[in-house]
Amino acid sequence: MLRLYDFLPSGNGYKVRLVLHKLGLPFELIELDIAKGETRTPEFLKKNSNGRIPTLELDDGTCLAESNAIICYLAEGTELWPESRLARARTLQWLFFEQYSHEPYIAVVRAWTHVLGGMTDLQHAQLPGKINGGYQALDVMEEALDGKRFLVDDRFGLADIALYAYTHVADEGGFDLGKYPAIRAWLDRVAALPRHVPITWRPTDAVARVAS
Amino acid sequence: MLRLYDFLPSGNGYKVRLVLHKLGLPFELIELDIAKGETRTPEFLKKNSNGRIPTLELDDGTCLAESNAIICYLAEGTELWPESRLARARTLQWLFFEQYSHEPYIAVVRAWTHVLGGMTDLQHAQLPGKINGGYQALDVMEEALDGKRFLVDDRFGLADIALYAYTHVADEGGFDLGKYPAIRAWLDRVAALPRHVPITWRPTDAVARVAS
Repeated sequence: MLRLYDFLPSGNGYKVRLVLHKLGLPFELIELDIAKGETRTPEFLKKNSNGRIPTLELDDGTCLAESNAIICYLAEGTELWPESRLARARTLQWLFFEQYSHEPYIAVVRAWTHVLGGMTDLQHAQLPGKINGGYQALDVMEEALDGKRFLVDDRFGLADIALYAYTHVADEGGFDLGKYPAIRAWLDRVAALPRHVPITWRPTDAVARVAS
Repeated sequence: MLRLYDFLPSGNGYKVRLVLHKLGLPFELIELDIAKGETRTPEFLKKNSNGRIPTLELDDGTCLAESNAIICYLAEGTELWPESRLARARTLQWLFFEQYSHEPYIAVVRAWTHVLGGMTDLQHAQLPGKINGGYQALDVMEEALDGKRFLVDDRFGLADIALYAYTHVADEGGFDLGKYPAIRAWLDRVAALPRHVPITWRPTDAVARVAS
């Protein structure tokens, strides 16, 4: 059975959980607490030398890292993977946008202010720039979603899953989505789709256990 | 003809230039100076609403953004794109690693100290963390390359191109590769391959012009 090393509040982990559930793939969830250094143990570093969740362990023990690489791997050959070369490029464009221009701002502000707590002076000093960067990412998304149902070819796919993960909890980092009507309508649209599960969801059709 | 909006010192842009040249695809290079705000003009924001280079314009005017998405698009169906599902996942894993755990440290330190110059107080305060993050990324690469010729399946591909781009100029940001023999041997190996061109290379088989 697939085994997912994850941290429940993580939007990066949530992307993988959501794709696994959408595709009906059972998996074992191993929860690691990143705040307690559980992804930096010698045992875990053998699975992912970069020491991060989510990490997916395949049946043969092969471990895959990087949330967006994992969801591409899982989606290949399914309805979540676009058929056209241009749609695949656009999907990857949104996935790289998410990791470079969205997550380091929107997810990091949420992590600092909501998930982990207790900011350092340097984090405090960076916060205005992080908040500004988050709104810039939301501006890009709002323009792309204006008049559209989904991010790529108006068809639900990996780009929507990857961007939904941290956008739908952006308010936990203090981001105000009031001036983003297209984003808000898209969030509702994604959440209303079949086999949607919330970020707090754990699989019940698999053994879920907390590490150590 | 393909048209690439780019900034010559950019490693992100260099990835695309290198793949285009490796594949023998002629292109027009439009150089924009990011330090002068030339990627934030209303005209350019119509091509890439995130205001960044590299941006690739296809024959029909379609514009693609995000360096790693662009090189995947160009490589699909060529020898640079892995044949196995697992190798594709590993390639994407390295590409997302590059954008999240490598570029924001190694490229940003180089940009602040070497390319753009004139750091703010906040950038100065962030520098030790950025340098530390850069060495962490190099540690991950060194471990992966130990005893290997290339990053994925011991066969040269997009992962090597994406990671080569900023690693080979890491010294410009002050990073010392002395304790990374596997990385240094790999850099030499990549640079010795056919149709390799340096980061300062401009196409001569196409019209190259500097914007306004």
